[in-house]
Amino acid sequence: MSKGLPKRSEDYAAWYQELVKQADLAEHAPVKGCMIIKPYGFAIWEKMQRTLDDMFKETGHVNAYFPLFIPKSYLSKEAAHVEGFAKECAVVTHYRLKNSPDGKGVIVDPEAHLEEELIVRPTSETIIWSAYRNWIQSYRDLPLLINQWANVVRWEMRTRLFLRTAEFLWQEGHTAHATKEEAIEETRKMLDVYARFAEEYMAMPVIKGVKSENERFAGAVDTYCIEALMQDGKALQAGTSHFLGQNFAKAFDVKFANKDGELDYVWGTSWGVSTRLMGALIMTHSDDKGLVLPPRLAPIQVVIVPIYRGEEELEAIKVYVQKIIDELKRVGIKVHFDARDTHRPGFKFAEWELKGVPVRLAIGMRDIESNQVEVARRDTGEKHTASVDTLTGHILNLLDDIQKSLFNRALAFREANTHKADSYEEFKEILETKGGFVLAHWDGTTETELRIKEETKATIRCIPLQAEEEAGKCILTGKPSKRRVLFAKAY
Amino acid sequence: MSKGLPKRSEDYAAWYQELVKQADLAEHAPVKGCMIIKPYGFAIWEKMQRTLDDMFKETGHVNAYFPLFIPKSYLSKEAAHVEGFAKECAVVTHYRLKNSPDGKGVIVDPEAHLEEELIVRPTSETIIWSAYRNWIQSYRDLPLLINQWANVVRWEMRTRLFLRTAEFLWQEGHTAHATKEEAIEETRKMLDVYARFAEEYMAMPVIKGVKSENERFAGAVDTYCIEALMQDGKALQAGTSHFLGQNFAKAFDVKFANKDGELDYVWGTSWGVSTRLMGALIMTHSDDKGLVLPPRLAPIQVVIVPIYRGEEELEAIKVYVQKIIDELKRVGIKVHFDARDTHRPGFKFAEWELKGVPVRLAIGMRDIESNQVEVARRDTGEKHTASVDTLTGHILNLLDDIQKSLFNRALAFREANTHKADSYEEFKEILETKGGFVLAHWDGTTETELRIKEETKATIRCIPLQAEEEAGKCILTGKPSKRRVLFAKAY
Ligand SMILES: [Zn+2]
Ligand SMILES: [Zn+2]
Repeated sequence: MSKGLPKRSEDYAAWYQELVKQADLAEHAPVKGCMIIKPYGFAIWEKMQRTLDDMFKETGHVNAYFPLFIPKSYLSKEAAHVEGFAKECAVVTHYRLKNSPDGKGVIVDPEAHLEEELIVRPTSETIIWSAYRNWIQSYRDLPLLINQWANVVRWEMRTRLFLRTAEFLWQEGHTAHATKEEAIEETRKMLDVYARFAEEYMAMPVIKGVKSENERFAGAVDTYCIEALMQDGKALQAGTSHFLGQNFAKAFDVKFANKDGELDYVWGTSWGVSTRLMGALIMTHSDDKGLVLPPRLAPIQVVIVPIYRGEEELEAIKVYVQKIIDELKRVGIKVHFDARDTHRPGFKFAEWELKGVPVRLAIGMRDIESNQVEVARRDTGEKHTASVDTLTGHILNLLDDIQKSLFNRALAFREANTHKADSYEEFKEILETKGGFVLAHWDGTTETELRIKEETKATIRCIPLQAEEEAGKCILTGKPSKRRVLFAKAY
Repeated sequence: MSKGLPKRSEDYAAWYQELVKQADLAEHAPVKGCMIIKPYGFAIWEKMQRTLDDMFKETGHVNAYFPLFIPKSYLSKEAAHVEGFAKECAVVTHYRLKNSPDGKGVIVDPEAHLEEELIVRPTSETIIWSAYRNWIQSYRDLPLLINQWANVVRWEMRTRLFLRTAEFLWQEGHTAHATKEEAIEETRKMLDVYARFAEEYMAMPVIKGVKSENERFAGAVDTYCIEALMQDGKALQAGTSHFLGQNFAKAFDVKFANKDGELDYVWGTSWGVSTRLMGALIMTHSDDKGLVLPPRLAPIQVVIVPIYRGEEELEAIKVYVQKIIDELKRVGIKVHFDARDTHRPGFKFAEWELKGVPVRLAIGMRDIESNQVEVARRDTGEKHTASVDTLTGHILNLLDDIQKSLFNRALAFREANTHKADSYEEFKEILETKGGFVLAHWDGTTETELRIKEETKATIRCIPLQAEEEAGKCILTGKPSKRRVLFAKAY
């Protein structure tokens, strides 16, 4: 804590890494590529989970739980899916350990080899559609609107806490529909839910779009996404929603009888967000002093630090503060009174700044006399005094203001860092000097996309849904294009 | 649904299996030993989770998340623990698949063999105490009161939905303390939390006790448990809370400096309940018509079934019922209006009975005229009419009454099925003819315990905490005993 953080301007990656560690959010586990989400980090994730879960339920979804293990052969059933996911996986081959003959520890029992190896789920389309086959017979069984909260594993060698880890936590929605139109509507609806969550709770502006064929989910007909811009000018994909067409229904033979009794394959969607959102949240708002949390996701929204000399003063402040605490809690504000006698106020100020608590109150003996407190907001660092008599309303407004300010600040940053490029030269120059989002014309081919990626490291983040039609020429090939697409270097 | 259930008196195991399936609670997954928890079953589990999580937080605990994988060598660090858990485990040996040379599907890439195999966690003491080593330096870092909600895997060949599955969902609390007394207090506190949850929410009476050495958790100094009696006279262990002493602190070298600056090993506890509670809930209350749910854990507490002929009547009932629904929701009652026009009332009655909804309202045109509804309670099957004007208060009282009645009925059953045995003959006769709990004297040795188990299949469920001192003789050996212990055949 006391060590201070690297500056973002000097080493953004080191700043991120140290912030995650020093703010007690997460740490690397002894198992390569895995992470431990520490209580403070998990409390933020829990707020995200609870909010999203409520939004899913409001839109008619229910939760269920499917197995961790997928039979190896399932992965091969959908041709594109196996190409995308049957690569870096954790494979369970044995089901027993035994004592080592040399008396030192345990070894894998070679006799306990599984007939068919099991894959630790990298995503659950295959196991879920194999179940849907039994669950769906008629149009009356549709739609199925199911979500699960789960851990998944995609073997990764180069990992970064929250952003890329071998095991991560996520939710995955898997829905089944009688018509193509309804499935597309569901795909778009959940994209909207994600965008609303990102903007209203994470205070993170996002661009909704559709992925190019090359960036599409393995097994999807269309992949929709929300893309956010981080402070270092790199993009981060914050959520995806896939229209699966009838691909998985065909792979797992899931048919239904429509109202006329005719059999047809079921239409599907899947959509997910993960603990990666934690990385997005951190990188959108935080500064060189540490984490900055939007009030709606902060486990502690207000921290109270007593300023005192000696036990007697501390006791007096404790008594005085209790009614403030009660009042704040009464209106639903999460408040913490930091009465630790082992640390000085300056230390506490720095620690709560590091942990991103939106509002800090400081109260000393003189404040009690004048019936006021010192109020400091984390986002701007601004301080002022406020009367205790009207404090609750004041804090409610302040939290609301911080939530909005963070969003507006992030939006202004994104707007300042979104550029149009009309030639490949200009495109490369923007990427090298400014970074950020670049809107440019593209001829629609994977070939062009890959060459641009190879030469500039920039990828097509999405074809924005709100992109206006605009005749233009591809920056690389000069071929005609109807609209600009969104390029960026990305996490 | 329409098939009906086997009778409990004829085939209890088949009744259970069919009930779980027909009430849409869970089903076997294609992966041997694993289960799929279906939405209706999961909704009950979510209520359990939410309630327990609130209780954990009220007692000062926070959530975190630790990795799914445990390095094989970790299991060996605590001598007793490795004996208990390093047996039937899922072992990850490889991290990559590749296309099969024959072009058919994928195979495990033999080159991608892990240096050290990973175990899918059967429980997380080892990985968590290895983290605690870095988190704890001083008494100021204590206590650590951490819980995690997670999936765990213990390879099982003979599985039963919810009761015994290879993968299951659970919570595991892992706490660290400066003193032995505090750790024991924590162990007992969490046992009390479990008992309160079982009795107040599940309406399932439990006996609190301590396990014999033979039944103790591998690595614990003492294992406390709550034991419930199922309708077939078998016991079910519904939760355990372990006092770990300094065993894991020693195994993972976790020391702290006390106030005098002296180094000592940390004291630990762990405690858990799992989706097994679903099995306990089902088997405690349900009957030959299906599931019976205590109102406090029912996802749907009141279902409303319209009795009508033709669309016009249905519309009239819909309008009439809306104010009832609004009123019930206003006071927090979970209500569902079954307006499906595809099924007859009799079918709906049977379905909601099968699904255990505590209260059913039936409303037809004549009821509208007389401003009343037919009220049926699931637990007793009793029906009566109630005035709509006072319905909300009436339903609130009824739900409360059902909750209490279910507990009292289960308690009466347990009391009627708890017997004292003063000789081995009597003991065996009770087990053979009546089943249930048997209180008997035991000489305190593992040898005797194992012989009784071998000869009768009954195990010592626990040494009840509230057992009065009573001089007696061991039923098997005649050796002196100071108190009766609780025997039963068990799940
Ligand atoms: Zn102000
Ligand atoms: Zn009544």
